[in-house]
Amino acid sequence: METGRLETFSDGVFAIAATLLILSVGSNLSWTSDAQLRHELAQAWPSYVAYVVSFMTIGIIWANHHTVMNQIARADRTFLMLTVGFLMVVAFIPFPTRLVQVYIHTPNAAAATVAYGITLTLTAVMFNALWFYAARGGRLLREDADERTVRGISKTFRFGPWIYLVVTLVAVKAPAAGAIGFLLFALFWVIESSVFGRSDPASI
Amino acid sequence: METGRLETFSDGVFAIAATLLILSVGSNLSWTSDAQLRHELAQAWPSYVAYVVSFMTIGIIWANHHTVMNQIARADRTFLMLTVGFLMVVAFIPFPTRLVQVYIHTPNAAAATVAYGITLTLTAVMFNALWFYAARGGRLLREDADERTVRGISKTFRFGPWIYLVVTLVAVKAPAAGAIGFLLFALFWVIESSVFGRSDPASI
Amino acid sequence: METGRLETFSDGVFAIAATLLILSVGSNLSWTSDAQLRHELAQAWPSYVAYVVSFMTIGIIWANHHTVMNQIARADRTFLMLTVGFLMVVAFIPFPTRLVQVYIHTPNAAAATVAYGITLTLTAVMFNALWFYAARGGRLLREDADERTVRGISKTFRFGPWIYLVVTLVAVKAPAAGAIGFLLFALFWVIESSVFGRSDPASI
Amino acid sequence: METGRLETFSDGVFAIAATLLILSVGSNLSWTSDAQLRHELAQAWPSYVAYVVSFMTIGIIWANHHTVMNQIARADRTFLMLTVGFLMVVAFIPFPTRLVQVYIHTPNAAAATVAYGITLTLTAVMFNALWFYAARGGRLLREDADERTVRGISKTFRFGPWIYLVVTLVAVKAPAAGAIGFLLFALFWVIESSVFGRSDPASI
Repeated sequence: METGRLETFSDGVFAIAATLLILSVGSNLSWTSDAQLRHELAQAWPSYVAYVVSFMTIGIIWANHHTVMNQIARADRTFLMLTVGFLMVVAFIPFPTRLVQVYIHTPNAAAATVAYGITLTLTAVMFNALWFYAARGGRLLREDADERTVRGISKTFRFGPWIYLVVTLVAVKAPAAGAIGFLLFALFWVIESSVFGRSDPASI
Repeated sequence: METGRLETFSDGVFAIAATLLILSVGSNLSWTSDAQLRHELAQAWPSYVAYVVSFMTIGIIWANHHTVMNQIARADRTFLMLTVGFLMVVAFIPFPTRLVQVYIHTPNAAAATVAYGITLTLTAVMFNALWFYAARGGRLLREDADERTVRGISKTFRFGPWIYLVVTLVAVKAPAAGAIGFLLFALFWVIESSVFGRSDPASI
Repeated sequence: METGRLETFSDGVFAIAATLLILSVGSNLSWTSDAQLRHELAQAWPSYVAYVVSFMTIGIIWANHHTVMNQIARADRTFLMLTVGFLMVVAFIPFPTRLVQVYIHTPNAAAATVAYGITLTLTAVMFNALWFYAARGGRLLREDADERTVRGISKTFRFGPWIYLVVTLVAVKAPAAGAIGFLLFALFWVIESSVFGRSDPASI
Repeated sequence: METGRLETFSDGVFAIAATLLILSVGSNLSWTSDAQLRHELAQAWPSYVAYVVSFMTIGIIWANHHTVMNQIARADRTFLMLTVGFLMVVAFIPFPTRLVQVYIHTPNAAAATVAYGITLTLTAVMFNALWFYAARGGRLLREDADERTVRGISKTFRFGPWIYLVVTLVAVKAPAAGAIGFLLFALFWVIESSVFGRSDPASI
């Protein structure tokens, strides 16, 4: 099977999941006519930060998925089903994002941040499953797959789940630190790939 | 008519319907500031299961639609309208999913599960209508359609509606058993196509 | 400008507008734990009918847009902006659909049905503007545009706004009759194009 | 990296962000069974105007993004990340649109309109970042990029953020004037590009 339609479907889910994030920005506003809107909008800053972190995270996943698919020549049914499972976890991200937006300033912050962290950890796990299923023994790779890129992906991907897991464990005790961890990790990715990746042709 | 734009539109509806499922996860949460969030999130497990079953079901429909379209060379207006009808039922799935999420633990579980089952039965019926309209006498098939795949699709598709109907009838009396039935059927498809379908080149 | 990306964007809006319709199915349900769900689901039948009519209407618009774009070779900025205006009205359809779903059984049925009719009338007007801008003097048509199809589109499109306008005027006095009118018109289109259009190669 | 999948993803976000705008039309309605629907629908006109302005604005951004991408041959990771950032701001537009729809007739009109203006200003800033990163020294431009178009884009884009900033500052003191400003600027773009751009082949 060609991977074209697989990418269309995946891009659709990435784009929708990212765009749906906006629906929960403003969950903290009262939406009443006697609101102190200016004050409420200022207070709602964690809502915007959570939007930015989740949007960036999905954007990075999309960019990485692109890098991965560039090395892959064909798909089989197992790969198709792994992709569906992977997209299922990505499409789940708006829910814990909303939890964080609503609860970050309450005693429930830990539960919300941990739910967020578990979702991101699972996303990284599924992305690994997808990749290593395709790459093991070159099963679905292109004939002319760039070996350096393939090894680069394998090396980087392995760390993902562990980093998310560690930040999630931090969030159990210190939800604010956990939230900052997710923000920093997304920022790191953006900066790493846009500044350092720029000079490295293999990173695309 | 070429089938390219038909696939783009279909993939769009599949991707959106699947991604919209997330909007109703959390329907059972109180979203109040004094919530026992950790407890509520644990209690909401049927909500996640329903999300997974519906997402997987739409994912399988998407993968099968892909297999079907691979055998089809062109579309006429009847096929176009059958596709619209088919997508209409697929896009309906988020509604009964939400019913199940909200009502599975209440005396209304039967009504919710039956509504879910009727929707999936109709989806299977419309998918059959689509396929047999295209396949009858090779009407819209490719010149070089793989005969084994064509017969394989015809054989498998015929069962779909009946299985969903039976599980729906079970759900009338035993909603929990019905819900488990829908889960098992989705799991069966995922495992069947990813494990057994792997070695069978015709299954893609 | 090539029309490829124009079609992708249009197909995206059509697919999303159609799929978003599901969000308002169930507006009439109480969603409380002591609901008489079976009874409520039966009572909500106008909600399903409205979903079907709007989904079919958007599906027909999509199919017709496809037919139209098949005759068009290129786009200019005016055509681009007319397309944006056209999509803006199509994407508006979920709002009056929800009005009809919520108010069809109340004294507000007329206002809801008229709002629905105005939206569909505007959609037909914008579709005409789009088509006649492209077709006048063959401005954006393909060199080898099928003359019979071009004349067929022009002839059919001209009627659209007037029919929707008449049904809308009926809805002012008799909302139920208006609603049935919109249903019949959508059905007419589906049947006309799938049964009669089948034997007519020019209709695609 | 080819820009094809970048455009698919961008078009997806544009289409979804524009179509989601419909969800907040009707925020001002009471949705109760004893509503004076006709009266409420008439009163809600700012809601429709805000929908039109935001939809047109996203439509113009989409058309301009198309013009820009036509001059660009390839993408690197920095460009990818800038695109994600740009789309993040575009996908944010539905939120301040809803603020304006809900609060334009209240003492909170200034806060809502300013939030709207800041979002549009940021959109224009990000669009500039995207463009000038690609165009500086011809970094990502096509070999045969049309020099006149490139200079035209650079000249026009530079003004965008400043105009939005000025209108936003107006909105601080006079929210209604600000809202009219955003409407006029969108109208100006539509008319400018569809009337004047028509005779100018370089504008596409």
